[in-house]
Amino acid sequence: MKALFHVNELDRWAHALLNITNLLRDVGTGEVTVEVVANGPAVIAYRLGSDDALRQMDELHAKGVAFVACRNALQMQNIPEESLAPFVTVVPAGITEIVRKQAMGYAYIKP
Amino acid sequence: MKALFHVNELDRWAHALLNITNLLRDVGTGEVTVEVVANGPAVIAYRLGSDDALRQMDELHAKGVAFVACRNALQMQNIPEESLAPFVTVVPAGITEIVRKQAMGYAYIKP
Amino acid sequence: MKALFHVNELDRWAHALLNITNLLRDVGTGEVTVEVVANGPAVIAYRLGSDDALRQMDELHAKGVAFVACRNALQMQNIPEESLAPFVTVVPAGITEIVRKQAMGYAYIKP
Repeated sequence: MKALFHVNELDRWAHALLNITNLLRDVGTGEVTVEVVANGPAVIAYRLGSDDALRQMDELHAKGVAFVACRNALQMQNIPEESLAPFVTVVPAGITEIVRKQAMGYAYIKP
Repeated sequence: MKALFHVNELDRWAHALLNITNLLRDVGTGEVTVEVVANGPAVIAYRLGSDDALRQMDELHAKGVAFVACRNALQMQNIPEESLAPFVTVVPAGITEIVRKQAMGYAYIKP
Repeated sequence: MKALFHVNELDRWAHALLNITNLLRDVGTGEVTVEVVANGPAVIAYRLGSDDALRQMDELHAKGVAFVACRNALQMQNIPEESLAPFVTVVPAGITEIVRKQAMGYAYIKP
């Protein structure tokens, strides 16, 4: 199983992280490949020191969940890449990543 | 044709049910398999006695539309399964259902 | 690459058009087929004379992006088809278009 979560609003993170936690518990870590792509203002949550969403992401990352940020969005939000949590991967355009992953068989989920 | 509708906010039900009604009218009942997966606060609408969204769901269910609730969401909303409309099916995790159905070729729609 | 953008709320157009602009710049025009399907109140943005979102759509259309409106939504919003921008294509039901395009391998994105 492969699942891509698309988060583009800051206030959807809590719901998204709960969805992923439930998915991993339901099917078992290792049974599903999970990637989260954030663009728009949602990338703000990746900034070190922001809040406890980051701690929850860190725990999910330790279970294999990939967290991706859109570079265009980081620039629009004036967030330097050095200020991001170390587990975050930056791609040139979040939408390209979303399109490519769906072409590779990932299911799309918009929490 | 196979279509999966994902509803996770209570105020998106009216739009979702209208989308499904239009889809069935456009392609013809029997030409498309439709499933609705509700998680988050959207599961509240499945509770018996809630309002007339339930009557509209009942009519769509009679035309073959499947209505699914996420058990995690029901527990978070303190909704006992016995209080749900009889046409609702409960799954352990709504997100797992969404991922599985997309892997089976269902189109994903977030109304 | 093939990508379908679903816009059903008027206030999501700015984000959607920015997503498409970034996608085309990232992968290059001609490397991706892009279609936008609008239903619900989002179809209001297609009306001639509305605002500068239309100018941005016109530029994207010149680069090959298809803009589609749902006829059911136009009727609900009392928008005659003659009042739409000339680059807009009308389909009987937007949701049917979304389901068909995903079956043809388009990735789904909800901005």
